[in-house]
Amino acid sequence: VEVAALFAHSSGGKKVEQVLPSLAGLFGGTLDVFDPERARERADVAFTALPHGASAPAVAALLDRRLKVFDLSADFRLADPAAYREWYGEHGAPDRFGEAVYGLPELHRGELADASFVAVPGCYPTASILALAPLLAGDLVDRSTIVVDAKSGISGAGRTASASTHFPEAGEGIRAYKSGGTHRHTPEIEQELSRVAGEPIRILFTPHLVPMTRGILSSCYARAKPGVDAEACTARARELYRGSPSVAVLDPGANPDTTWVRGSNRAHVSYAVDRRSGLVLAQCTIDNLVKGAAGQAVQCFNAAMGWDEGLGLSAPAVWP
Amino acid sequence: VEVAALFAHSSGGKKVEQVLPSLAGLFGGTLDVFDPERARERADVAFTALPHGASAPAVAALLDRRLKVFDLSADFRLADPAAYREWYGEHGAPDRFGEAVYGLPELHRGELADASFVAVPGCYPTASILALAPLLAGDLVDRSTIVVDAKSGISGAGRTASASTHFPEAGEGIRAYKSGGTHRHTPEIEQELSRVAGEPIRILFTPHLVPMTRGILSSCYARAKPGVDAEACTARARELYRGSPSVAVLDPGANPDTTWVRGSNRAHVSYAVDRRSGLVLAQCTIDNLVKGAAGQAVQCFNAAMGWDEGLGLSAPAVWP
Amino acid sequence: VEVAALFAHSSGGKKVEQVLPSLAGLFGGTLDVFDPERARERADVAFTALPHGASAPAVAALLDRRLKVFDLSADFRLADPAAYREWYGEHGAPDRFGEAVYGLPELHRGELADASFVAVPGCYPTASILALAPLLAGDLVDRSTIVVDAKSGISGAGRTASASTHFPEAGEGIRAYKSGGTHRHTPEIEQELSRVAGEPIRILFTPHLVPMTRGILSSCYARAKPGVDAEACTARARELYRGSPSVAVLDPGANPDTTWVRGSNRAHVSYAVDRRSGLVLAQCTIDNLVKGAAGQAVQCFNAAMGWDEGLGLSAPAVWP
Amino acid sequence: VEVAALFAHSSGGKKVEQVLPSLAGLFGGTLDVFDPERARERADVAFTALPHGASAPAVAALLDRRLKVFDLSADFRLADPAAYREWYGEHGAPDRFGEAVYGLPELHRGELADASFVAVPGCYPTASILALAPLLAGDLVDRSTIVVDAKSGISGAGRTASASTHFPEAGEGIRAYKSGGTHRHTPEIEQELSRVAGEPIRILFTPHLVPMTRGILSSCYARAKPGVDAEACTARARELYRGSPSVAVLDPGANPDTTWVRGSNRAHVSYAVDRRSGLVLAQCTIDNLVKGAAGQAVQCFNAAMGWDEGLGLSAPAVWP
Repeated sequence: VEVAALFAHSSGGKKVEQVLPSLAGLFGGTLDVFDPERARERADVAFTALPHGASAPAVAALLDRRLKVFDLSADFRLADPAAYREWYGEHGAPDRFGEAVYGLPELHRGELADASFVAVPGCYPTASILALAPLLAGDLVDRSTIVVDAKSGISGAGRTASASTHFPEAGEGIRAYKSGGTHRHTPEIEQELSRVAGEPIRILFTPHLVPMTRGILSSCYARAKPGVDAEACTARARELYRGSPSVAVLDPGANPDTTWVRGSNRAHVSYAVDRRSGLVLAQCTIDNLVKGAAGQAVQCFNAAMGWDEGLGLSAPAVWP
Repeated sequence: VEVAALFAHSSGGKKVEQVLPSLAGLFGGTLDVFDPERARERADVAFTALPHGASAPAVAALLDRRLKVFDLSADFRLADPAAYREWYGEHGAPDRFGEAVYGLPELHRGELADASFVAVPGCYPTASILALAPLLAGDLVDRSTIVVDAKSGISGAGRTASASTHFPEAGEGIRAYKSGGTHRHTPEIEQELSRVAGEPIRILFTPHLVPMTRGILSSCYARAKPGVDAEACTARARELYRGSPSVAVLDPGANPDTTWVRGSNRAHVSYAVDRRSGLVLAQCTIDNLVKGAAGQAVQCFNAAMGWDEGLGLSAPAVWP
Repeated sequence: VEVAALFAHSSGGKKVEQVLPSLAGLFGGTLDVFDPERARERADVAFTALPHGASAPAVAALLDRRLKVFDLSADFRLADPAAYREWYGEHGAPDRFGEAVYGLPELHRGELADASFVAVPGCYPTASILALAPLLAGDLVDRSTIVVDAKSGISGAGRTASASTHFPEAGEGIRAYKSGGTHRHTPEIEQELSRVAGEPIRILFTPHLVPMTRGILSSCYARAKPGVDAEACTARARELYRGSPSVAVLDPGANPDTTWVRGSNRAHVSYAVDRRSGLVLAQCTIDNLVKGAAGQAVQCFNAAMGWDEGLGLSAPAVWP
Repeated sequence: VEVAALFAHSSGGKKVEQVLPSLAGLFGGTLDVFDPERARERADVAFTALPHGASAPAVAALLDRRLKVFDLSADFRLADPAAYREWYGEHGAPDRFGEAVYGLPELHRGELADASFVAVPGCYPTASILALAPLLAGDLVDRSTIVVDAKSGISGAGRTASASTHFPEAGEGIRAYKSGGTHRHTPEIEQELSRVAGEPIRILFTPHLVPMTRGILSSCYARAKPGVDAEACTARARELYRGSPSVAVLDPGANPDTTWVRGSNRAHVSYAVDRRSGLVLAQCTIDNLVKGAAGQAVQCFNAAMGWDEGLGLSAPAVWP
């Protein structure tokens, strides 16, 4: 695999190390302004990471030129056009809507083999779906009341500086945002949980900003069915994620820390059940910038090429 | 009010500014080893802040000497001896068990007037009860499934260094602890919510450590009764907390940040309702070391002396 | 003292608590767009906190209307017009240049009495001057090589979000900025040190951004004159700051922490001497937003009114 | 290369993933209690990372059994026994004192080839020497006044919890420690700088704790010789570090951020000169746990085996 070209928009023309200072002395090129024709000339595969809305036409231009596309935007993750319209508005490439495979290898491994167009899910859906899927697959919880309380590092907000990422206002406190069920990742999580459950699932998803750069902890609550304990949940998860090199299902009652997966493509999943209240806590931690973004795209790429899913992704976390 | 004496155990004999370096140049005394008889000679009122178990005999010794006591430990907060035994073990002063007023002025203002013995609640119960009490008082939610996902700054763990407070393991990540309904503040929150509800309430309480020193955000989830919206929850809270100088009920949908109350005795409360899932999110932020500890003790002291509850506590937060 | 009006520019018309969320429930007014005539009608004294360049004409308009002005900008801190031009460019109110008292009460207490126009120094100069002034006043160090390595919390960069205050790029690392002697606070520090020394002083001042919101640690290095030890430096500082309620000179060798003064108007100063290398380390910590900004302005105001300098400023730090 | 055994002391018998949670699901073994004979049976090369004092006898036992040893303690870094005695006390294996190669490949590459015993330097010396060596090698600065103001992430203090690593006391502030020239890394930095300079060098080294987990920024100040500018310093450094894959010399005036090297074995070096004061600022950033510890040991191992120095160390930083 060779990096054939790097495209940008506002950073076009800059040296790579100006934009990504960690590459100083390691990677000497410059960024070009995006041009699908030049992409076709140089590359067979494209990774796209544009904002929703902006991504769809760029992706369509690349698909039209027969590149395989691994898209990290939200534009092709939803299967229901009405849901896209409700949460995002008009779609930028309606002809291509519905063509992508949902790029969560742990649930879509079969479809990813030979896929040429993959919609790579982001951080919140990855962490929330990985935690809850075993409970729904195993029919272990009441499906009517599922709460997802997710905590994210601030890099999840992207690279554009704003009041909500300004250190003095975000650096030593915690707060929710887009509460009351208004965050756009809600329908995506529901879509995948509904697929696993075989019936429509509704959740309340509440994201929070935590004063750290990387990491997501998704804390998911549901009412356990009678007799279900943490061991049963753990066993079901281990069964579901057997053969998934990126997922470690921790022992019952373990509390994963986001630093344990920082910088890696790994997910830690765990389960606890409180007998007094009858509730399950399902937790999942990932690095939002790796398993929740670029690493997951590489994992999908490996799967689509028929290679070992973990190629280039075996590094453990940078811990502590 | 005059500080008549300061007592310590392992720090006895040290200068105050060695133990509390922020007092350098401001407060020149030394710490004495605790002696209830000397306390009686010098003071009319005692504030005690010992670990549970160790507190009960010290408090009893002070009460026996007719001091008014404001106790910040967990030893006298529970009303049910069986609950104390289940969660904490044998009690250190069973004769005094049940004598204290629960020192949450917003719910126990009447009993605090003229009280001579107050069990001051800590950080998690204060934040969780303040968020949920209006919903139960107003019969606005289904009482069978209440989830409390609480996020705390690391100072909540106390001053003793440990792996869980060690910066390299706690400084750039988030994790739950004592999950699965095992945290000792659970029965205290349930006790107070049950009093408000008029029937036994069970919750799942899950605490988390956030990489910040101060602050608690308690995120509480429950199923809304039909027709209940954020405005109704907000209105009920404003009614309940009318006359409570430390509580600000924010507008519907607001997301309070812990830094907005840092260093102050204030609590910010807010409500959101998600119509799709039918769930309420009730949030409360406090500074765990002020409204969740010393500030609340002073507030109780003011109330018990018949003074303005907010005396000495009017400073706004140190924000940002 | 009464807050008569609050003026803003881009935030004009907003509720105070929208802009300063820590005041929710405490302070109910709105912000007006700045109008010097309305200021005159309502107030006797003005505190101005505009960027340099923008401040000068606003201050002049207020002075013309006979208000006392305490200006937190850099526009009136320098005494030498050439230095202002070199470091800042053209001045916005040259007629008023040179009229203000430099508002560091510890060095200018006499001039502040009855002052009607005060240029309040900011965070870096305050911390650096307080550390070094005793060494120069006492002729304890070689004046030819003075290094100031200053470390600041990120709130020092102001409230405007930018790449350098963006949590993911600033939150878990440290870096210098404006290195090589290019930071505009250099001439101000040199001006005050030269006044104390009685001859021109040149320093190398290098600021750093530290991943914390508040606090400055100014670490100052100079070559000790023969026989000078930490005790001598400490004694000279205690003499110089006698009668200064905001300054605590710590014992020789102490290492002040910025959290020990966080949220307070206090400065901690300390001295160490290394016999092997013959160098002195002079340290000073302040809260950049209090003793390095608003608190210092209030301290100047008190001094100018002939009141106790510490009025309203006696609170100890919010520590930890 | 194969991991043949992992030895521990107090953690002997524990599963690796209990002690290093980032390895959950990746590395299944357990830790054995250290036994040099079993080490000999299983391995050809040993990496030792014990505290100073404890390391010497363990290293001697391994050397006696003909293992190659890469020691990360301070026990074999100094060449002068009197200096060891002054700063550390009695040595635990005096027969072996002076036998190790100082494992900074950028300065000792020749001696490392075929070395069988290497004393790997730690974080502060690596960052400080890499910044200053070019200035001394090129005779670009006055050698009589060199100040090193070093800022370290808190993981530099090791894994044992203490007051100085306790989040509430270290998490949102900065402070110096072991100031006044008392830190034990002083003689090691002086030793290597003296080797480069060809005459004895004295420095004042002052370490600081910064509220972040990883990273060191070493800010070094010296008086420039006449005519020396940042370009000259940069050119000399590029010459000295040509062929050193871990070092990137940034452009003149650049300010490296510790996050740009976080998680990598890289060092960023840069130079600025202030003409007004005549002082040079030489900066170096590394990750104290990689280039300042384990990564450097691997780099030395590669060099000693005659392999490419960068094997296994090519990953760029985990940035942001």
